[in-house]
Amino acid sequence: MKTNLSELQASLNEDGIAYYLIPTADPHQSEYIDDSFKFREYISGFTGSAGTLVVSPKSCWLWTDGRYYTQAEEQIDTSHIQLMKQGTDGVPTVLEFLDEHLEPEQIIGTNGKYISEDYGKKISRIAKKHKAVFRANMHYVEKLWINRPSTTKNPIYIHDISYAGETIDEKISKIRAVMEQAGAQSYFLSALPDIAWLFNLRGDDIKCTPVFYGYAWITEEKIYLFIHENCLSATAIPYLKEHQVIVMNYEEIVPFLEKQRGTVMLDSRSTNYLHGQTLFKCKIMDQPNPTESLKAVKNETEIANLKKYHLYDGIAMTKFIYWLKTQIGQIPMTERSVSQRLEEERQKQPDYMGLSFDTICAYKEHAAMMHYQSDEESDVPLEPEGMLLIDSGAQYYGATTDVTRTFILGPISEEEKKHYTLVCKSMLLLADAKFLAGCRGSNLDIIAREPLWAEGIDYRCGTGHGVGYFLGVHEGPNAFRWRSNPESLDAVLRPGMVTTDEPGVYLPGKYGIRTENMLLCKEQRQNEYGSFLEFEPLTLVPIDLDGIDFTLLNEKEKQLLSEYQQLVYDRISPHLTQDESAWLFEQLC
Amino acid sequence: MKTNLSELQASLNEDGIAYYLIPTADPHQSEYIDDSFKFREYISGFTGSAGTLVVSPKSCWLWTDGRYYTQAEEQIDTSHIQLMKQGTDGVPTVLEFLDEHLEPEQIIGTNGKYISEDYGKKISRIAKKHKAVFRANMHYVEKLWINRPSTTKNPIYIHDISYAGETIDEKISKIRAVMEQAGAQSYFLSALPDIAWLFNLRGDDIKCTPVFYGYAWITEEKIYLFIHENCLSATAIPYLKEHQVIVMNYEEIVPFLEKQRGTVMLDSRSTNYLHGQTLFKCKIMDQPNPTESLKAVKNETEIANLKKYHLYDGIAMTKFIYWLKTQIGQIPMTERSVSQRLEEERQKQPDYMGLSFDTICAYKEHAAMMHYQSDEESDVPLEPEGMLLIDSGAQYYGATTDVTRTFILGPISEEEKKHYTLVCKSMLLLADAKFLAGCRGSNLDIIAREPLWAEGIDYRCGTGHGVGYFLGVHEGPNAFRWRSNPESLDAVLRPGMVTTDEPGVYLPGKYGIRTENMLLCKEQRQNEYGSFLEFEPLTLVPIDLDGIDFTLLNEKEKQLLSEYQQLVYDRISPHLTQDESAWLFEQLC
Repeated sequence: MKTNLSELQASLNEDGIAYYLIPTADPHQSEYIDDSFKFREYISGFTGSAGTLVVSPKSCWLWTDGRYYTQAEEQIDTSHIQLMKQGTDGVPTVLEFLDEHLEPEQIIGTNGKYISEDYGKKISRIAKKHKAVFRANMHYVEKLWINRPSTTKNPIYIHDISYAGETIDEKISKIRAVMEQAGAQSYFLSALPDIAWLFNLRGDDIKCTPVFYGYAWITEEKIYLFIHENCLSATAIPYLKEHQVIVMNYEEIVPFLEKQRGTVMLDSRSTNYLHGQTLFKCKIMDQPNPTESLKAVKNETEIANLKKYHLYDGIAMTKFIYWLKTQIGQIPMTERSVSQRLEEERQKQPDYMGLSFDTICAYKEHAAMMHYQSDEESDVPLEPEGMLLIDSGAQYYGATTDVTRTFILGPISEEEKKHYTLVCKSMLLLADAKFLAGCRGSNLDIIAREPLWAEGIDYRCGTGHGVGYFLGVHEGPNAFRWRSNPESLDAVLRPGMVTTDEPGVYLPGKYGIRTENMLLCKEQRQNEYGSFLEFEPLTLVPIDLDGIDFTLLNEKEKQLLSEYQQLVYDRISPHLTQDESAWLFEQLC
Repeated sequence: MKTNLSELQASLNEDGIAYYLIPTADPHQSEYIDDSFKFREYISGFTGSAGTLVVSPKSCWLWTDGRYYTQAEEQIDTSHIQLMKQGTDGVPTVLEFLDEHLEPEQIIGTNGKYISEDYGKKISRIAKKHKAVFRANMHYVEKLWINRPSTTKNPIYIHDISYAGETIDEKISKIRAVMEQAGAQSYFLSALPDIAWLFNLRGDDIKCTPVFYGYAWITEEKIYLFIHENCLSATAIPYLKEHQVIVMNYEEIVPFLEKQRGTVMLDSRSTNYLHGQTLFKCKIMDQPNPTESLKAVKNETEIANLKKYHLYDGIAMTKFIYWLKTQIGQIPMTERSVSQRLEEERQKQPDYMGLSFDTICAYKEHAAMMHYQSDEESDVPLEPEGMLLIDSGAQYYGATTDVTRTFILGPISEEEKKHYTLVCKSMLLLADAKFLAGCRGSNLDIIAREPLWAEGIDYRCGTGHGVGYFLGVHEGPNAFRWRSNPESLDAVLRPGMVTTDEPGVYLPGKYGIRTENMLLCKEQRQNEYGSFLEFEPLTLVPIDLDGIDFTLLNEKEKQLLSEYQQLVYDRISPHLTQDESAWLFEQLC
């Protein structure tokens, strides 16, 4: 790995580039990216899903968040790359770092296709402030990278209306209403899950995410969709025609944008900087993609399917857990073999379309890395002792699932039991919240965090994220997290939104615990104070009671746990074998 | 009252004014205002501390918040004034209302001295959007108001450094550092509590608030203070001279502002629109007054005094409660007579400087009005039954106090007992919060609200507000409230900040319950996750256990209540008579 970095540094030195920025992004600011865009991994060796590398001719800094501190430290060459722990007191952000370090006439470079319009503008302002030069048309890593994989171009197919619940036309007319309200003549959309949602199409261009590379341009009268045309399925071609969608080639987007004039609405967080600059003759109206909040509120068809496919997912998970808990110590198992077994259980379910993210199967201290990925090198045998964390999910034609359970494989310490109990309690308390309409996730986050904060423990990530519908496993604008600032206030929670609830305890070198359910927001009651909302758990997977210290739960908390286990039993047991069902009955409390 | 409104409407009709805006404000955007500025009360009859009147030739609308719905309905002539319940679903804000109603060429008028620069600009934008005309130089109510009281001009005196804890020079240099950082040449300050804090001066121009009318203008080299010069005490004159403060007459501010050029930092929420417009030759840097967050974080001297004077305040309150609880039914009492008795107890305490707000003493259904004021007409005898809510506070030379207790005067219903218990529980749970530095009140608010929300009950106000130090009883930027938007995100909580914790239940026509402690934010522990903060109660006043249904509290909640009562007993009992002390001992649980 060191070779890639030193080669890059030699080039930067030669060309007099003071800082070169390598984000983790594709031209759509997707959260997960195709292998062909893994420039940061290529240079640093760090494989985590999020991180930014800043390279100077003599130094190198890697920013990543709390999920990846431990993993990054293991993967990078710390004698050449300095780890910058995002969100830790005293650690500057990339922008603050540039603001502190940039000197007059220094050049900061990047490829503008891989940073957002918003972020690029911020760098540009900082460069200007320090009389430095910002160049966003550089391709250093592209030039260095031999055998770079080509970008995926998989088939694009229709997501049937009986699953989507709403036609293109209905969705487009909502977008046009927002445009009219804002006074915009055009709307430019770069976010892949939003495009898939808007056109009721799905693809397979990003691992675990059924999206396809594309851009959409909507005017008051026309609808343009820029895609790899050859990928369109035979039925999708007439379907798009029928809905008056003008299909253009993906590569034609830049020349098309160059020709545009007038007022354009776009979201500068998902539009890339290159495209933002290309639209320089337009008046830009920067606002969050209306598609984001529209698709976050699931319609009735979607909700019905979410429930149906979560039942399937729960059956697969429960069958797997029965096998895991009864076979541990009896037959050989490793992190990778049990992941495989779980995937096989899911494959048996109807309309299974693949995993929704790489399964995290982490034994003992591995689980302290929130997003640990077991590979041949790190894989370990599982013994009848300690804890195993499995965070997994699937794509079904009518749902995206995401569930974490931590399993007690054998004896655990008192401390482990205490932390396991606290985590379950945190998850259950948030799931039980009743709150007035208007609340944001940032209002509710502390309900999950307080039991841990009271013990001086924190998890360095949000408590939960929005989830797509046969789309991205992480989707906004809803989330549970407590930090907020005026620029990134989290969304107001609305009935129909789906958010994960996944508090945890992570002790590096020791163990990690996480329990995660997906929660559907719905109305509880209306009265003179307004509309009260609550959550319904979509996830139907038993919690491993072997880790619970019931003396740490009060009556209400015991009841919440008992009710959840009962719900799972009632819904899942009819679909199990007699042995499995008998085992699940024992999970009642 | 109707006469005032109809006279105004006749004038508006004659002059072709479509809408006339009458806010509740003085030229400093003070929260509580001197009688001479009570234009809205003069026209509408509504005496609450907050509200905005919009008058058209034929209609009239009064906006007020949840604290005052019931009171406003009782005080206004609802056949001529429509009550607009701020914060209720579907009720537009004043600005939304104007946006909905303004038509081309209509005139909307007001006196720009009484609206903030920020608000005035918003009205101006809405007027422009609808091609209407906004005139901020009108004085309709001033012309109508015969016998309008003259503005208060009381003495201005030094707040001794042994109480202030920090000199003018130290404070000014902090302000200048902010100015330098922001690149501002001047700083214009209109907020009265901030001016009093900055100059270590106090006055008595606003009832219950030791401030004086003034403006400050700080440059890199000079300090101007605009006040009613004749009010300066004999010691204050040389004191200001010694600190190089240039004293100018209050009335000279407009001509002074007209002459200014360059970059001026100001807070458009507390600067009035007239002054903002007067500075049209300057480049305005609008940002929250730095004085606000500086004065919110109490220094060590202030904290020591806060504790000392809260002990005094607790002694006065406890003596009063002993009298109330033992004498009720024995001797005649009314809302007003017990308020008087409480005030007398406080007057006996050292360095007592008056009430910090008009005592709210509300029996039975009166307490459903959050800010009920008992007057000759509404005053009622107290009987040994039902509940009495008393929200009161004092100004001491070294503290501002604010405490609410609800007293059980005799038999109460099961429902009353349940709600009383829930309110105490809410207050105690928030006071017990442990949280990571960086949290805002909006993150914590739900801790107090959740026990009530779970029952479908809400209180239509924040859970608590910041409190000044021998200054305003309501001071920002800290608060506990859950609603937030990008423009008004509440402040991050910092050690040294003081905030009230006052959840409640208000059932119109039935009863009202509130329990309020003042909480000091302080550090709890530092570890690898960051700095954890917690609260220490400043208020030392027993909670009336007669309302508690212990079956509704879990073990932890019982312990919190027990610990609080013990703390009060330990600190207060040494200062009581034997009888009082014996009674307080019975309040332990």
